[in-house]
Amino acid sequence: MSPTSRYPVPPGGIIGILGGGQLGRMLALAGANVGLKCHIYSDAADAPAFDVAAECTFGRYDDQRLLAAFARNVDAITFEFENVPSGTIEMLARERPTHPSALALAITQDRLVEKNFLSRIGVATTAYAALDASKSGHPEVNRNLLPAVLKTRRFGYDGKGQWTIRTIADLELVLPRLKNVPAILERWVDFAFECSVIAARGGDGIFAAYDPPENIHGEHILRSSRVPAPLTSAQSQEAKAIAARIAEGLDYVGVLAVEFFVTREGGLLVNEIAPRVHNSGHWTLEACLVSQFEQHLRAIAGWPLGYPARHSNAVMENLIGVEAEDWQTLARQTGALHLYGKREIRPGRKMGHVTRISPLSAPNE
Amino acid sequence: MSPTSRYPVPPGGIIGILGGGQLGRMLALAGANVGLKCHIYSDAADAPAFDVAAECTFGRYDDQRLLAAFARNVDAITFEFENVPSGTIEMLARERPTHPSALALAITQDRLVEKNFLSRIGVATTAYAALDASKSGHPEVNRNLLPAVLKTRRFGYDGKGQWTIRTIADLELVLPRLKNVPAILERWVDFAFECSVIAARGGDGIFAAYDPPENIHGEHILRSSRVPAPLTSAQSQEAKAIAARIAEGLDYVGVLAVEFFVTREGGLLVNEIAPRVHNSGHWTLEACLVSQFEQHLRAIAGWPLGYPARHSNAVMENLIGVEAEDWQTLARQTGALHLYGKREIRPGRKMGHVTRISPLSAPNE
Repeated sequence: MSPTSRYPVPPGGIIGILGGGQLGRMLALAGANVGLKCHIYSDAADAPAFDVAAECTFGRYDDQRLLAAFARNVDAITFEFENVPSGTIEMLARERPTHPSALALAITQDRLVEKNFLSRIGVATTAYAALDASKSGHPEVNRNLLPAVLKTRRFGYDGKGQWTIRTIADLELVLPRLKNVPAILERWVDFAFECSVIAARGGDGIFAAYDPPENIHGEHILRSSRVPAPLTSAQSQEAKAIAARIAEGLDYVGVLAVEFFVTREGGLLVNEIAPRVHNSGHWTLEACLVSQFEQHLRAIAGWPLGYPARHSNAVMENLIGVEAEDWQTLARQTGALHLYGKREIRPGRKMGHVTRISPLSAPNE
Repeated sequence: MSPTSRYPVPPGGIIGILGGGQLGRMLALAGANVGLKCHIYSDAADAPAFDVAAECTFGRYDDQRLLAAFARNVDAITFEFENVPSGTIEMLARERPTHPSALALAITQDRLVEKNFLSRIGVATTAYAALDASKSGHPEVNRNLLPAVLKTRRFGYDGKGQWTIRTIADLELVLPRLKNVPAILERWVDFAFECSVIAARGGDGIFAAYDPPENIHGEHILRSSRVPAPLTSAQSQEAKAIAARIAEGLDYVGVLAVEFFVTREGGLLVNEIAPRVHNSGHWTLEACLVSQFEQHLRAIAGWPLGYPARHSNAVMENLIGVEAEDWQTLARQTGALHLYGKREIRPGRKMGHVTRISPLSAPNE
């Protein structure tokens, strides 16, 4: 490691962030609040995070020369999206403290590897099976899993690379479209609702979880998160304990999100893990003194974690596509308005969000 | 006005800010939250606000060429400190919507002009008299005012340019040190405590005030602000009404701070007006959904003002000089830590602040 790296990263130190979308942008803003500078590395020339970062690099995520210069310029490294090439993370980790680790990333980038990991550490998920489109499938396994969701193992987000499979005939129809992309078949979960735990683990193993929100999706995109979720205290504690077991199992450093299905019987099944700050944790900006963004930077920088207690109930609603055009109306309403500085409105694109809060003891709790 | 100016400034538009200290920095961060870019113009090469701004200009505040280029690059203009040369504001205002106005600035830059303005609109202050050191003074006036504080009319802050005057002999001692700098003698106020109102006025004349905090100073520097202040509801309403009258009288657009002495008899005397966001309003970042920084930008950009209601009680404490060296301890405590990214710690320098909040209904209220 270069002798110029400082760890724990002191105020005035530089955090390198791969990715310049709204998550990188909110990380950079949170860093600035506590005197940490951020250096954003993005392959998009108009990355929203560039506007708020002390330093910027525009380059490909596999440009070894640029990445090496980036690493030398920062004190610690993290990323805002899970599909960073794992070779890139390994290379950066040789230069600077880089979290989450390449191993944590490798596990959570692949739905099959992730589910196998969860099984290994004793965390419940729905039943699943690997599916290799180049073979004819395993009809006896598949039939047991139906109805199911077929998902590509990698690079899926917001419902991309997913198909509902009700019958073997559906499966035979979809398999050719997969070409040779490895996939996983997951038994459909008839859930009561979805929730998530946003939590942080420090390099010292200390773990801190925010209260789980209920998450409402529309067309596979998160629409709204509401905290508290309609969980019993025992369920909420169990969800946090599962997140802790996962973070421990991954030897994780930073903020991660664990998404759950809450079954009609009240059981908790892990749907997926996001090795990063998460849309369902945006409400922490208003309802907690230390947001998920600052918490992540604290973990990455080797700082003590902040208290994750919330002082308010909260409802976060995403502004998707043209919904952001209503900014003047939204600015008139009681709520914290966030706009991500994206130049172009596109259907399905997350343009911003609004968070409304209410007292913990409000009658609607 | 150049045809490229957009007003109201839409998301993606650029706010120009003169001054790059912590106030400019927190303005830029607040702008980023709602999708506004900030262009910081500062005469300090290492201005803390440069690290978080989309655009930066390093130049003198009277460099006409640079200022003109700056104005052409932005959609609206404001400033973070009141000692901007008034010619500069007049020049910028010809190019772009610039607030507060040159007139508001001219009045609040000069303690005598400010107090005359307050008298004219019927707002109570302590008794005062102009003092011209080039003359021998007006002993019969001065004696009536004693004990008093002698202040330079312009460029004073954090107690600089102030002397306590108990006797005419004290006055004779200080006068030569003033040289020919115009000054004002203000009767000493034996106050119970100090408070302030942070409020905003929009271009449409709509006015919104935050609840007044009690302010505690040490060595003339703000140490702590606590909201609610120990005011009666009637006093609090009166303080806000005075701030509204002042904002109206200045035809003010933006956030201003009105500092009050609360006398032992419960009266409110205006001490001074700051035509900008103010240290005693930093707690709005945590205890309100729209902070004073966002509120100022909303007013400047022609947006609707946000609701100023607070959801929590708050105590803000400044980190001055070496106090910021304790960042690791502070990061462990429950509170929102803010560090301003200043490279050098100097005695008396504001390095950051911490805000702690508690429920509105807390027993200590």
